[in-house]
Amino acid sequence: MAPQNELRRNEVAVAWANHVDAGLAFIGVIRTPWATRAECPHHGDPEGPVCRIEVDAPWDAALDGIETIERLEVFYWLHEARRDLVRQSPGGNGLTKATFTIRSPVRPNPIGTSIVTLVAREGPVLHVRGLDCVDCTPLLDLKPDRSHFRADPSR
Amino acid sequence: MAPQNELRRNEVAVAWANHVDAGLAFIGVIRTPWATRAECPHHGDPEGPVCRIEVDAPWDAALDGIETIERLEVFYWLHEARRDLVRQSPGGNGLTKATFTIRSPVRPNPIGTSIVTLVAREGPVLHVRGLDCVDCTPLLDLKPDRSHFRADPSR
Repeated sequence: MAPQNELRRNEVAVAWANHVDAGLAFIGVIRTPWATRAECPHHGDPEGPVCRIEVDAPWDAALDGIETIERLEVFYWLHEARRDLVRQSPGGNGLTKATFTIRSPVRPNPIGTSIVTLVAREGPVLHVRGLDCVDCTPLLDLKPDRSHFRADPSR
Repeated sequence: MAPQNELRRNEVAVAWANHVDAGLAFIGVIRTPWATRAECPHHGDPEGPVCRIEVDAPWDAALDGIETIERLEVFYWLHEARRDLVRQSPGGNGLTKATFTIRSPVRPNPIGTSIVTLVAREGPVLHVRGLDCVDCTPLLDLKPDRSHFRADPSR
């Protein structure tokens, strides 16, 4: 296990059979400037660097018309996170919080989401601002942000 | 395949090996008044009915302190949705949209999210408003909504 995944002071892990009830399929990859988790920002910044979302075939066909949507919700798999902590210490200082009261990557099902601004599309590649994940994070899904529908009362 | 999952006019399915790159474990269940997908609202309504989120052990231990968080993001598995459509016709009228331009449950990785208001907690059960999913939907995760951190400049 990598040092970044060692248990910190007062953290509580559960003995948990990590069973598989449903399967995820990666549909692309996210390219960011952050090579390690330690370098990643804690939250996505709308003014942050432009990152690339590369969508694999055949799912590039599901992007048609996405150019008109300014804000997208990106779903990705936090593949480096451990999954067995019920209490964790994000600051590593012995103070812990229950897992469901924070947005840490460490969770039973480590699905990350970010709200991003679409800067440009080049075929199967989206250029976006607002991500916070490590380079080469697997892509799970893309959705218009909820604000896209709230702004349009006809939906 | 259930009739609700039949291909509608002009919808486009892809031949896609539904491989498993990562596994999800269900950590509880969501109880709502809607027995079928046809009865579900299209979006969660903050004034909608109170629904129950039942968290299984050992993950109930990850709820400590959640009472202080008014708005939560709930992650769930849309277990009835097909996963192979790149274009779909939500209205069933022959007009189609690309999958990543809508928030339909039909997607390569059918993960649903709702922003809910926490009404009460009774041990491992949360009572919330704002859900839109069918009764007995499997629970994947709970996070404080992003607004929880934006409202607190110390985070």
